[in-house]
Amino acid sequence: MSGATFFPKPEISVTNPASAAAAMAAPNPSLFSGSRTLAGRLTDAFLAVRSETERRAEPLTPEDQMVQSMPDASPTKWHRAHTTWFWEQFLLGEHSPGYIPFHPDYAFLFNSYYVGVGPRHARAQRGHLTRPGAEEITAYRRHVDAAVVKFFHDTSDKMLAGLIPLIEAGLNHEQQHQELMLTDILHAFAQNPMAPAYDTLWTSPAPHAGSGWTRLIEGIHTIGHQGDNFHFDNEKPAHRVLVGPVKLARGLVTNADWLAFMDDGGYRTASLWLMDGFAAATGEAWEAPGYWRKTADGWQVMTLGGLRPIDANAPVCHVSYYEADAFARWSGKHLPTEMEWEVAARAEQLDDAFGMVWQWTRSAYSPYPGYRASQDVLGEYNGKFMVNQLVLRGSSLATPERHSRVSYRNFFYPHHRWQFTGLRLADYGA
Amino acid sequence: MSGATFFPKPEISVTNPASAAAAMAAPNPSLFSGSRTLAGRLTDAFLAVRSETERRAEPLTPEDQMVQSMPDASPTKWHRAHTTWFWEQFLLGEHSPGYIPFHPDYAFLFNSYYVGVGPRHARAQRGHLTRPGAEEITAYRRHVDAAVVKFFHDTSDKMLAGLIPLIEAGLNHEQQHQELMLTDILHAFAQNPMAPAYDTLWTSPAPHAGSGWTRLIEGIHTIGHQGDNFHFDNEKPAHRVLVGPVKLARGLVTNADWLAFMDDGGYRTASLWLMDGFAAATGEAWEAPGYWRKTADGWQVMTLGGLRPIDANAPVCHVSYYEADAFARWSGKHLPTEMEWEVAARAEQLDDAFGMVWQWTRSAYSPYPGYRASQDVLGEYNGKFMVNQLVLRGSSLATPERHSRVSYRNFFYPHHRWQFTGLRLADYGA
Amino acid sequence: MSGATFFPKPEISVTNPASAAAAMAAPNPSLFSGSRTLAGRLTDAFLAVRSETERRAEPLTPEDQMVQSMPDASPTKWHRAHTTWFWEQFLLGEHSPGYIPFHPDYAFLFNSYYVGVGPRHARAQRGHLTRPGAEEITAYRRHVDAAVVKFFHDTSDKMLAGLIPLIEAGLNHEQQHQELMLTDILHAFAQNPMAPAYDTLWTSPAPHAGSGWTRLIEGIHTIGHQGDNFHFDNEKPAHRVLVGPVKLARGLVTNADWLAFMDDGGYRTASLWLMDGFAAATGEAWEAPGYWRKTADGWQVMTLGGLRPIDANAPVCHVSYYEADAFARWSGKHLPTEMEWEVAARAEQLDDAFGMVWQWTRSAYSPYPGYRASQDVLGEYNGKFMVNQLVLRGSSLATPERHSRVSYRNFFYPHHRWQFTGLRLADYGA
Amino acid sequence: MSGATFFPKPEISVTNPASAAAAMAAPNPSLFSGSRTLAGRLTDAFLAVRSETERRAEPLTPEDQMVQSMPDASPTKWHRAHTTWFWEQFLLGEHSPGYIPFHPDYAFLFNSYYVGVGPRHARAQRGHLTRPGAEEITAYRRHVDAAVVKFFHDTSDKMLAGLIPLIEAGLNHEQQHQELMLTDILHAFAQNPMAPAYDTLWTSPAPHAGSGWTRLIEGIHTIGHQGDNFHFDNEKPAHRVLVGPVKLARGLVTNADWLAFMDDGGYRTASLWLMDGFAAATGEAWEAPGYWRKTADGWQVMTLGGLRPIDANAPVCHVSYYEADAFARWSGKHLPTEMEWEVAARAEQLDDAFGMVWQWTRSAYSPYPGYRASQDVLGEYNGKFMVNQLVLRGSSLATPERHSRVSYRNFFYPHHRWQFTGLRLADYGA
Repeated sequence: MSGATFFPKPEISVTNPASAAAAMAAPNPSLFSGSRTLAGRLTDAFLAVRSETERRAEPLTPEDQMVQSMPDASPTKWHRAHTTWFWEQFLLGEHSPGYIPFHPDYAFLFNSYYVGVGPRHARAQRGHLTRPGAEEITAYRRHVDAAVVKFFHDTSDKMLAGLIPLIEAGLNHEQQHQELMLTDILHAFAQNPMAPAYDTLWTSPAPHAGSGWTRLIEGIHTIGHQGDNFHFDNEKPAHRVLVGPVKLARGLVTNADWLAFMDDGGYRTASLWLMDGFAAATGEAWEAPGYWRKTADGWQVMTLGGLRPIDANAPVCHVSYYEADAFARWSGKHLPTEMEWEVAARAEQLDDAFGMVWQWTRSAYSPYPGYRASQDVLGEYNGKFMVNQLVLRGSSLATPERHSRVSYRNFFYPHHRWQFTGLRLADYGA
Repeated sequence: MSGATFFPKPEISVTNPASAAAAMAAPNPSLFSGSRTLAGRLTDAFLAVRSETERRAEPLTPEDQMVQSMPDASPTKWHRAHTTWFWEQFLLGEHSPGYIPFHPDYAFLFNSYYVGVGPRHARAQRGHLTRPGAEEITAYRRHVDAAVVKFFHDTSDKMLAGLIPLIEAGLNHEQQHQELMLTDILHAFAQNPMAPAYDTLWTSPAPHAGSGWTRLIEGIHTIGHQGDNFHFDNEKPAHRVLVGPVKLARGLVTNADWLAFMDDGGYRTASLWLMDGFAAATGEAWEAPGYWRKTADGWQVMTLGGLRPIDANAPVCHVSYYEADAFARWSGKHLPTEMEWEVAARAEQLDDAFGMVWQWTRSAYSPYPGYRASQDVLGEYNGKFMVNQLVLRGSSLATPERHSRVSYRNFFYPHHRWQFTGLRLADYGA
Repeated sequence: MSGATFFPKPEISVTNPASAAAAMAAPNPSLFSGSRTLAGRLTDAFLAVRSETERRAEPLTPEDQMVQSMPDASPTKWHRAHTTWFWEQFLLGEHSPGYIPFHPDYAFLFNSYYVGVGPRHARAQRGHLTRPGAEEITAYRRHVDAAVVKFFHDTSDKMLAGLIPLIEAGLNHEQQHQELMLTDILHAFAQNPMAPAYDTLWTSPAPHAGSGWTRLIEGIHTIGHQGDNFHFDNEKPAHRVLVGPVKLARGLVTNADWLAFMDDGGYRTASLWLMDGFAAATGEAWEAPGYWRKTADGWQVMTLGGLRPIDANAPVCHVSYYEADAFARWSGKHLPTEMEWEVAARAEQLDDAFGMVWQWTRSAYSPYPGYRASQDVLGEYNGKFMVNQLVLRGSSLATPERHSRVSYRNFFYPHHRWQFTGLRLADYGA
Repeated sequence: MSGATFFPKPEISVTNPASAAAAMAAPNPSLFSGSRTLAGRLTDAFLAVRSETERRAEPLTPEDQMVQSMPDASPTKWHRAHTTWFWEQFLLGEHSPGYIPFHPDYAFLFNSYYVGVGPRHARAQRGHLTRPGAEEITAYRRHVDAAVVKFFHDTSDKMLAGLIPLIEAGLNHEQQHQELMLTDILHAFAQNPMAPAYDTLWTSPAPHAGSGWTRLIEGIHTIGHQGDNFHFDNEKPAHRVLVGPVKLARGLVTNADWLAFMDDGGYRTASLWLMDGFAAATGEAWEAPGYWRKTADGWQVMTLGGLRPIDANAPVCHVSYYEADAFARWSGKHLPTEMEWEVAARAEQLDDAFGMVWQWTRSAYSPYPGYRASQDVLGEYNGKFMVNQLVLRGSSLATPERHSRVSYRNFFYPHHRWQFTGLRLADYGA
């Protein structure tokens, strides 16, 4: 192969966002813009995110909103309520004197894992709560939305300015759940023999025709979040790393690639797999990516638009880390590290880095050097997960707008495949 | 104790139903009565049962109807659909030429365990089916109801007469699911910290003030179903058994009795328990009957009317066989056999035999001598469960009218306690 | 079939043991006989049983004696030590003043399930105890044997007479473990790909060529143990039951019969099986009785003599209740109840009732009417197991001499098949 | 704290092994030395390693050698046989024409996980194999030892030279099992209430009184194995990394340190723990390191010398990664990465780096950039484990002489604590 050679300068940073590709432009603009007053800008951003949550729930029936088809997933209704509880608990409860919670039991029902905040309803039982129903959650959301907007307008700019980090955290938190709303309902629909469609008109985004490789020579780069914009704590501290030499594929691995792996017996060849991975593959009888169904008309896949024939040119999706790693070995290649990915992405050398599928890296999800979770209750957010999971980079078709970031670190267990997860390859050869 | 002595004559039968207590009158009248033509009588009986199913579902939201709070329970929606599928599969599908099933996937989704009929959706996943929704099930029921009624009126009396056994099986089958609809939704509501009420106006039936004992001297009696009325195959063949001497309590064990057992450390005293029972009790941390909650105001219990204080005079309910057996040992008494129960019940010597709680017997659920399951597909009904379960006799507050029978054999595993299950004692002492 | 008709008189008892068949003569003679003094007779009986235990352990290496190949089984070493602990705990510890236990930790290590006696080592971990080793257990046994014999000779006849029930219990308890020593080591050897033989010269007992049926007309019979000889508490109280009409097979089901069942797809035909049974059969991939191996030379079976070809005429062995029940249904027959078995056995109408294979009955293991476990610590012995198990009658090739009894009730869970278990059929047809 | 400042030069290497501390001298000398001919040197090295295996087994009874006290552990007997099988399979079987395996079944029984070599006995069942016994394994070892030595002397130097990599692999493989022999038998003994000692005279090595910190400034270093000596494939390829600034503790965390953590409620404080770690700690009821027992005389710990009082100055041992991570967070410090550890160790700045306890790093066990497992059967060795485990560096008191190496990468799952595992801290503060 004759990949285009790319020589990033060590320590290069993205100096000119205006000229970046669309995929790169999206990451990390402020959520707050375009309005006159701070209260107005906060209100705009708040209502934009809140209404996006409702927009995603809109095609779903009350029954759809209640299902929890596996312990890792949560009901739509729960996502809608939990994100609302966040505002009630952390913003109104702590900063709006006299605010009365909408319902005294909701804090218990809709806390997720914030141990510091008190006891909470068992995760695996979320799908057993028939009440409150979808309509009551709608009322809950309206109640809290109104209270938050009123709070913004009743509060001094000075105090609001001090609350921006919290508000940004709440908005980004809700955006994360927006992505999960889609992955979780798709899992449930995929279990249904009738294969319901979330949106019959849904179409997958078209991939860029990326091919060839981009080359990174050895150099020192700064990895992690820098600057004032919002970020999660796991993106910090920014720090210097030595990266390269390595080549990264410009494009994502496609369904056509994956079918070749399958045809070559990839799922049955133990020597291609990590030991834990082959145990998962045989234990769960994997023979194709998640949601694929073998039909009389060939392989089909369950999508947000229902059951569809496989598109050979589309990026493969719903593969676990174990599968991604086996595919890479079968290809004679590797998965990149998250540092390699970030360096190449900052230099705008990766096609489809954002908005298609999250890309597995071979980097375990570990703390950056000197990372320390913040000590307040929001500090529970990321640090406690830093073992046994792997980092995914980029973003997916389900990621909300203005939520992607080049330093963003997503993470899942290596057997997980209900997210929109794919891969791109790395090559350490000459 | 000075129990009234009772000397049933061997082979006594209930010769004068007109004089029997109300509880005894209920059992086993025909479901078909009061109309002029056979088609008319079938239609009346059919619509009465079908509308009772819908009446029981009526207080429930779409979300309520979807929940499956444990693998043993099924969603309301599923009960409504499965009982409908029965008519479609066994009556219309086999006897109404040209009938087109309402939906091609429903046979797969709503078959329960009739292996002979084909593959079926996994039981434990019933709560993951968001579609079809409650409204679609309502349409399904209406469609099938209309088709059945039309079929009755389009079919000759001669053919209808031949179908009566099947129709009776279908009606009784649906009645069984009517009871499960209540037990299953109560289980789900009991898991909800908010303790929703199925019907806030619900009241438990008042027990008869039964006290003392009824004595059975040794005698040969015929056990099991005799005559032409509907019965399940497990009630056959009627056969002769030697019963007694034994005394049976006239009344049911009450909550007051049970509180004394609890106060005496009953749940923590290994020597009172069967070994498997104590393993269940400690493994599941039982310290009171099912659905009891210890509150600041004392013990309360989750009922169809919501959370209510314990009524000391009411029969204890939601106890497993293991608990019933431990209680009997603690009392210095035993549980009766199902034969003893039936003999005493036939002689109208038991109070609250029907309509309060099912009563655990110490009889394992085994085939009667020479029992052979019928070879048609309905023959899967009862015989395959005849191991590892115990017989309960009588009926409960959730049992539909006209479904009780003195020869009725209900059965559950010894750890089960989500049914309306209680006990009465037996005494083999002098 | 033309079974010989047999009319037992109701209430018949075995009035003339001298004339009974050898198989019937064995059951229930006293273990104490032939010696001059009471102390002498006790010593003879004691040493006879104790040396039989050692004789059974003799072919085994120290490693063999340590294995616990599944939680239900126990190491040989443990059986040898536990039976010794019994004497130390209940005889010497309570009745021999000043007796010092051989080792202070052994009571904890070698108690089995006597909750009343104190805490005990976890059952499933017995195979993890490398020390004390087989040699130390030999020393332990010698120490206790000497102390018991000395105790017998130092104690007055009057006091000894009062201890006879305890001593009989200890001897019968040890005999039960003698049978388990063989079943447990055979399970371990059967897991070993090298198929070691317990005794290469071992031969299975020859079956009597029983064929045809014995008929029981309806009659009242007394079931259970009567008289003064030793018995377990579960054989009491003797009580009257109505038995028949039924026919029982004179002989046991053979391997030839079983191969016909297998050839007819018995293991794959769901309609022949109890639901729980088919789940076990598929979950554990049964396709033949336990210990059968399909080899290039046909079916072979792991026996005490090592791997041997199937003997078509031998009784089938190592079948579970689930398999026995499925076989009976496939045959158009049933399993007998334990009452039917006992009535026919008392009348000497069953061939191979003893000394070949335990025979599954369809009777659940339940208390006889009015049964109450004794309140002392030995009372834990049988009563706590009276749920979820099935009764087996007769005895097996591994049962020690003088341990069989016509009223003996053995019991195992329906999935168990590591005991020497087989079946005989019953027929309720005309 | 006033840690001595240490400025390693980037790319520093250990230039003067003669002057290094004893602990550093040990790593990675050749196993082959001091003899005249190549065959002689190979024979010396081979017999030295083989006899060390037997020396470690010598204190153990046949029963001790059979126990498998958890699925992760293996019986001593199995270790002795498996390491022997290695020579038979890979050296004699492939390079000694006409060699006949000692026993035809041993390849099946004693293969471990080399999928490429064929089927193998289930790992979790190793403790169920009573035969072959310890004596037969001794005969097996003698047979193979003699055959190998004869092979060395019958083979040309040229051919032997080509086999050196295989022979080194076999010797290092056997040394790894020598360490496991001690960790596995200690686990079994620790389960025994009688707390048997492996060697009553055993004493733990004395720690160096390391205190304070060594500082690494930022610099580029080469990590991984370089040169011709033996190494495992996972130590390759050597590659450059950017390390620092960071400080590493000179000494290991001690029992005194750990008791302070325990006294401060460390095991009960969820906020100190990784989420998966706290689940393990509560699920397994950890309240102290592995093998600690709370006695009337205070905390004691099960060692190779039996139960001993806690030595406050000794390094804490038998802690899992989860515990090590929680301790580090409680200390306001971190665990080092494996790269940091290696850089400091190469510069001889770490006390007790070798020979005490393996030291958890926070580095996930991942492939070095461009790592590719070799394609022959020995290539199964390390690569397939590169997920879900964490790297430990250094070596332990159980590591055989001449087996340690500064680039050595040991790895275990984060919940494992039956190895001799401890930790040293890192500090990223100013």
